[in-house]
Amino acid sequence: MMVVRYGDDIIVIDAGMMFPEAELLGVDIVIPDITYLKQNREAVRAIVLTHGHEDHIGAIPYILRDLDVPVYGTEFTLALVRRRLEEHALLDDARLREIVPGQPFEVGPFKIEPIQVTHSTIDCVALAIRTPVGTLIHTGDFKIDATPVDSRRFDLPALARYGDEGVLALVADSTNIERPGHTPSERAVLPRLEDLIRAAPHKVLVSCFASSVHRIQQVIDLSEKLGRKVAFVGRSMIDNVEIAHDLNRLRIPDGLIVKPQNIKEMDPKKLVVLVSGSQAEPLSSLSRIAVDNHRFVSVEHSDTVILSARIIPGNEKPIFRMIDHMFRRHALVYYEDGAGQPIHVSGHASQEELKMVLNLVRPRYFIPVHGEYRQLFRHAAMVEQTGMVPGRVLLVENGQQVELTAEKANIRDTVPAGRVCVDSGSLEEIEEAVIRDRQHLAEDGVVVPIIAIDKHTGRMEGLPEVVSRGLVPSDDGQELTSRAREVVLRTIESSNADETADWTVIKEKIRADLRRYLNRQTSKRPLVLPVILEI
Amino acid sequence: MMVVRYGDDIIVIDAGMMFPEAELLGVDIVIPDITYLKQNREAVRAIVLTHGHEDHIGAIPYILRDLDVPVYGTEFTLALVRRRLEEHALLDDARLREIVPGQPFEVGPFKIEPIQVTHSTIDCVALAIRTPVGTLIHTGDFKIDATPVDSRRFDLPALARYGDEGVLALVADSTNIERPGHTPSERAVLPRLEDLIRAAPHKVLVSCFASSVHRIQQVIDLSEKLGRKVAFVGRSMIDNVEIAHDLNRLRIPDGLIVKPQNIKEMDPKKLVVLVSGSQAEPLSSLSRIAVDNHRFVSVEHSDTVILSARIIPGNEKPIFRMIDHMFRRHALVYYEDGAGQPIHVSGHASQEELKMVLNLVRPRYFIPVHGEYRQLFRHAAMVEQTGMVPGRVLLVENGQQVELTAEKANIRDTVPAGRVCVDSGSLEEIEEAVIRDRQHLAEDGVVVPIIAIDKHTGRMEGLPEVVSRGLVPSDDGQELTSRAREVVLRTIESSNADETADWTVIKEKIRADLRRYLNRQTSKRPLVLPVILEI
Repeated sequence: MMVVRYGDDIIVIDAGMMFPEAELLGVDIVIPDITYLKQNREAVRAIVLTHGHEDHIGAIPYILRDLDVPVYGTEFTLALVRRRLEEHALLDDARLREIVPGQPFEVGPFKIEPIQVTHSTIDCVALAIRTPVGTLIHTGDFKIDATPVDSRRFDLPALARYGDEGVLALVADSTNIERPGHTPSERAVLPRLEDLIRAAPHKVLVSCFASSVHRIQQVIDLSEKLGRKVAFVGRSMIDNVEIAHDLNRLRIPDGLIVKPQNIKEMDPKKLVVLVSGSQAEPLSSLSRIAVDNHRFVSVEHSDTVILSARIIPGNEKPIFRMIDHMFRRHALVYYEDGAGQPIHVSGHASQEELKMVLNLVRPRYFIPVHGEYRQLFRHAAMVEQTGMVPGRVLLVENGQQVELTAEKANIRDTVPAGRVCVDSGSLEEIEEAVIRDRQHLAEDGVVVPIIAIDKHTGRMEGLPEVVSRGLVPSDDGQELTSRAREVVLRTIESSNADETADWTVIKEKIRADLRRYLNRQTSKRPLVLPVILEI
Repeated sequence: MMVVRYGDDIIVIDAGMMFPEAELLGVDIVIPDITYLKQNREAVRAIVLTHGHEDHIGAIPYILRDLDVPVYGTEFTLALVRRRLEEHALLDDARLREIVPGQPFEVGPFKIEPIQVTHSTIDCVALAIRTPVGTLIHTGDFKIDATPVDSRRFDLPALARYGDEGVLALVADSTNIERPGHTPSERAVLPRLEDLIRAAPHKVLVSCFASSVHRIQQVIDLSEKLGRKVAFVGRSMIDNVEIAHDLNRLRIPDGLIVKPQNIKEMDPKKLVVLVSGSQAEPLSSLSRIAVDNHRFVSVEHSDTVILSARIIPGNEKPIFRMIDHMFRRHALVYYEDGAGQPIHVSGHASQEELKMVLNLVRPRYFIPVHGEYRQLFRHAAMVEQTGMVPGRVLLVENGQQVELTAEKANIRDTVPAGRVCVDSGSLEEIEEAVIRDRQHLAEDGVVVPIIAIDKHTGRMEGLPEVVSRGLVPSDDGQELTSRAREVVLRTIESSNADETADWTVIKEKIRADLRRYLNRQTSKRPLVLPVILEI
């Protein structure tokens, strides 16, 4: 998410989500902290989307709850947003405004032209934003694909025109800054896919990101050419195909499609199944197919399985476990292993493409975005090396404000920014303190010592009780628990009347003694939660 | 770990450990399940080690507690084992037997020749094991490096001799089966390291695996050549350098070394620091240096940092976070990004090297080991394709027994095998049930409803208490807790006398009602642990 402000007018560019890292226990998704936008609620005019990937639109349903603003996006992008809003029962109140590449629109003092770019999904745009102090170009996510599958080329001439006119700042995608050269065209996967499908002795399963409409089109075209029918499996795959097809962005020949429920009746030699779940997400179709737990599809001896997707770092273990399951069923499994022709290509620009955009735009200031710090740093360093923006490369992190005038750039104070953790079940925000508790529970378990105190006499009734979980195996647990009860009893007996009368004090003493005892016995530091029951 | 048995004699080849996957909460290390060895305790004659990497020796201290057997290994390998055993105070009782490449030794009916191989650490061997029914060759971990840094070449002629004589089975490393061609020599990193160190404007930090003695030697040689002193930082780095140097396996020119405590006094332009922690392990030196939390070393403006190590899948996030910290301090950070000359090379054989070993050994049976299932599968498939071992490739998983005679191979019953999770603090084995509890706690937190019952009257005393952790933020928590108390109260009130008298029944009713209530309110399914306190 990026915020552009001029005086009392704000537009927001993209509103994405991330999947949490493993240590964010029980967190389902991570969205941006919009405290700044809520503080400046009156000024926010619109959210403008560059394209429909989750890391650009995924936070929309959460943010629209707090900010009632119109959302601008291209046809396909808005169709995806519409689905998300429907799921959250927010569609009726949303104001969605379709934008078209090459057709400028105005929001407050901003005149915005969406510029068509090429990327791994369709209907992606860069934004040229004319402001009273100059023009900003935000590339969105892009690569420069000279031969896009849908023949809708990157509108490089538009960038050149803005460059001729003068651009105040270029804000550019840094994802692939580490790759030298030029990212191959989406069409580069065709030869390998064709070889594999042509040679396949039995059924073919192809898995790719459900939003990779270009990839899906190529698999459809190849299947037709090679005399195979196509089935779509997986909710996101079916959704995306349906949306793209409804918008005439996916060409599907009549009679080519087989319904998932009819897959088992088909001649496997005449079938390609396009299935979502390339990242081995736990409940995805492909994961379930791999362990033979899917209603309509199974992996059989000699099936060909093609993972035509990036193995996202962090997902290797589940993906390779899934692949192992398929090899055990004697499938022929193909995935990106660095050997041979590509089975997947990236949607992001490599170094030479990034330099080409810089050459066309010739901005006064350059701001790298969309990457981890090392990528922003390397993008900044590369642009500095070109000598085209000398001393005017601005390396900023989330929350840092850049103030631009026609002549000057200042890095101003930081505003609140960062991550908000969301439980997708309850839609509740999860506080960092709760996550820390969960990490503690996960690491060392929990121990609850309980004592009952007579509210009239202040005396302890009965013996202390101790329950624990996640600490030690249950056999050792009984022994440990009964010893822990003795520890609690001794703590109470050795305390004087003042201490036992003050519950805060006695709880803290119990906590400290028990923690020390347990750490000595188990080398663990469980969460100790003393409870005093007044009866 | 592999077990070789003939009649009543068993030898064990290697005894490694793994680091746990993220979902194994609170588990520090994972070692092999040795139930089979304990059941056949009388027959186990020795553990024979191929080399000193943790995934081959790391379980030794745990296994020697259960099995009192001699451990055979080369000089450097045993020196590493000795350190581990010292840490566990087990060295006095251990029987360590040094073996020398090319010098056969006997254990029971087995005559074993260690054969020198090349790998990323030193003193690595394959094992030729003569048994009464034929010879087995176990490659250990290897690559075929024609120009090893220590000039100790892979003893390919020995493999050829065994091949001429006839080999019953070849058991081979499958780690790099996915890589076509030939793994570059360890010396292939020299040009890039030299360029980077030569061009460095300030101090140089190089991080590699502490066991990569060849890499360390090359950095020492380069530093000498380029007029820089060398400091070693990090416990494992210092330990390994010391061991290798004591054994004359590391050549360190007089006067080259600087003590860590003297680093800050040195001219940074005349210094190279070799530091452990390339995987960004939480307390490692490099991690601490990156956040300026190390006594002797800091990363300064224009320092050169070279990560000369593989970025192990699963470690990307912490490693790149560490790199980000160093970029923020304006260091020049270099790491394996696939661009340019290699900054690290693998120690494992690629496809052509694996085929070459097969060509030399010409075994009757082939068994791929040391890899995930997909790697074993692909290794088996590649060997089948060569046509050299037709129909005699045995693809087996952990625990499967292969029975070999001079003429036949049978895959027999499975024996207990798998992983044992260990808490390195207590050295206790952690049961799967405890890990499942922790996962549950981590995902959804814990709720403990407590009621006090008078042991004479059977009546509830006072009101129910409910404590929770890891479920909801503390503000909402109070509200939720007081409602949960009402739920427990209603459950008790609506139960009849028989039910309240039977604690198992009433606990189960409380658990069920509370779980239903909490799931409705929070969409979570916390661990609910009802406690009845008898007073």
